[in-house]
Amino acid sequence: MEVRDIGEFNLVERILKAITPAAGVGGRCVERRARLVVGPGDDAFAAEVSPGFAIVGTKDLLVEDIHFRRDWASPEEIGYKSMAVNASDLAAMGGCAPLYALVGLALPAGTDVDFVKRLYRGMNRCCKRYCFSLAGGDTVSSLRGIIISVTMLGAAKKKYILTRSGARPGDLVAVTGTFGDSGAGLHLLQKGGKGDSPDGRYLIRKHLLPEPRFAEAAALARSGAATALIDSSDGLAASVGFIAQASGAGARIDLDKIPLSRAWRRVAADGKIAPYRMALAGGEDYELVCTVRPGRFELLKKQIPSLTAVGVIAGEKKIEYFLNGKKQNIATKGFEHFGRG
Amino acid sequence: MEVRDIGEFNLVERILKAITPAAGVGGRCVERRARLVVGPGDDAFAAEVSPGFAIVGTKDLLVEDIHFRRDWASPEEIGYKSMAVNASDLAAMGGCAPLYALVGLALPAGTDVDFVKRLYRGMNRCCKRYCFSLAGGDTVSSLRGIIISVTMLGAAKKKYILTRSGARPGDLVAVTGTFGDSGAGLHLLQKGGKGDSPDGRYLIRKHLLPEPRFAEAAALARSGAATALIDSSDGLAASVGFIAQASGAGARIDLDKIPLSRAWRRVAADGKIAPYRMALAGGEDYELVCTVRPGRFELLKKQIPSLTAVGVIAGEKKIEYFLNGKKQNIATKGFEHFGRG
Repeated sequence: MEVRDIGEFNLVERILKAITPAAGVGGRCVERRARLVVGPGDDAFAAEVSPGFAIVGTKDLLVEDIHFRRDWASPEEIGYKSMAVNASDLAAMGGCAPLYALVGLALPAGTDVDFVKRLYRGMNRCCKRYCFSLAGGDTVSSLRGIIISVTMLGAAKKKYILTRSGARPGDLVAVTGTFGDSGAGLHLLQKGGKGDSPDGRYLIRKHLLPEPRFAEAAALARSGAATALIDSSDGLAASVGFIAQASGAGARIDLDKIPLSRAWRRVAADGKIAPYRMALAGGEDYELVCTVRPGRFELLKKQIPSLTAVGVIAGEKKIEYFLNGKKQNIATKGFEHFGRG
Repeated sequence: MEVRDIGEFNLVERILKAITPAAGVGGRCVERRARLVVGPGDDAFAAEVSPGFAIVGTKDLLVEDIHFRRDWASPEEIGYKSMAVNASDLAAMGGCAPLYALVGLALPAGTDVDFVKRLYRGMNRCCKRYCFSLAGGDTVSSLRGIIISVTMLGAAKKKYILTRSGARPGDLVAVTGTFGDSGAGLHLLQKGGKGDSPDGRYLIRKHLLPEPRFAEAAALARSGAATALIDSSDGLAASVGFIAQASGAGARIDLDKIPLSRAWRRVAADGKIAPYRMALAGGEDYELVCTVRPGRFELLKKQIPSLTAVGVIAGEKKIEYFLNGKKQNIATKGFEHFGRG
């Protein structure tokens, strides 16, 4: 059986099952020194290093021609995005303050030194913007393609950490920003477009330079009104699915409430595409998807103007989609590696 | 100019220069939250998260057919070694207690699921042995070959952290264990040998299953007698070179004092090879290389029986090698990626 037969999400589930009993949450050795308060399976892990204070950490691998292409993005953009997608996982833990980044780089021997310099320039730019400090790394050779591995660490008050698992039936499902832009930008790049229109350029830019939502996540955490939080790396459908699964619940999502940019609406209309598909499954928007206690949304919206309610958590363990009140038959689980997206 | 033209060590120096001013040690944003006490360029970084208490972190990338080969090692051995080489970097920071490991895995879609399971079994084994807890990770697809990215975090009292830069002229250079075994084991594997003799099997095992030296490093740190510490990932010559460079000093190394295993002595004698070359440049022994205040070695040796003095730190900034008191002409800088080893 090959990994393509079971897909990424299934593989990750098997890995989680394999590691938890041996050395997972609450492992005996570590327990005494720094208790793991959030273990494998969330956007990041969190370990309580002093009472009420946790170190939060996450890592991502970016593989050339899978996560980025050198003919689509400048070295600076590739560097910036490598950092931003990791930072987004930290932001998705709630009130997390950025600390450090570690960078592992595997390079073919023929890589231009100037490319490496410009890659780091982009990484530095993202680090400065979000207050991370580049603290170390590893540089090795690769036989084919560039691989960028980024680990990011942050600090959080334990009480402000939000995981995927706190949603309860009746909670509103809410999101920041707009959905589908990044997937649409990728689609334009795949078609060979370089963004000849302002709309195209906007969507491509959204794909190449995502912005982690630290401020919005911190406001959600401090409000006490949010019950679960995740970022939307794999698309809205996957994010809602992960929250529902981790919380032992289901959800009802109103497709017509999903915020879409004017650029994506226009491009979708031109191409006669239903814009919601890309919002659900396109992935890489790196917006926040959260659940909010009933009755607390309006107050929260005042603090986070980009927050939009798109649905509600349901008791029954299934995800249902509605368009203008009419149930839709949608099967997507979001973007998945190993070709089962 | 390509990275192969300048080599790994030179590339890393350029990267360090590029990142330090922007967001390096003592960066403004981070300073307030968790001061970086050891920054890029050492085996690991260290950040003081509460007074006198630091989080120590390191990361390594392992690329199939460069760092490991699936026809030479079992999945369990590959998993174990991925963890052990990272752990060795943490051990090389002095009195560091293991905490967490993060694993990033890039897999071709055709990878056998059983391989992944067995890889994690090996990782788990190493984690349990050294008291790490697998805290999270990332699983993505790769177009060619498996890439394993490991990040490890530990905790250390700030006063017990040892870096590469504390060596002073007159300090003894000392090492744990024996040198050249791993390089010799790799050499046997490259020649197609499967270890048909006990000596061959011993050397191959040393290559496939290195052991981080946590206990020895902690004893060195607590003694107050050690002034600098590094592990020997790239060979003894590179380790001594890194300490000398970071400390603004040089060193004199007695080749005849370098500890060699009986297995490697016998195999080298059979092949009419000078055993010291492999000890200097073979790499991957993952032993400790440290400097010790003059007059403190004998006492330290009682606590760390495997400790051997192999030379002395010199004021002049060059590394000289002696064999039975006679100066040798040796130019190796140790193993380097991008083909300049």
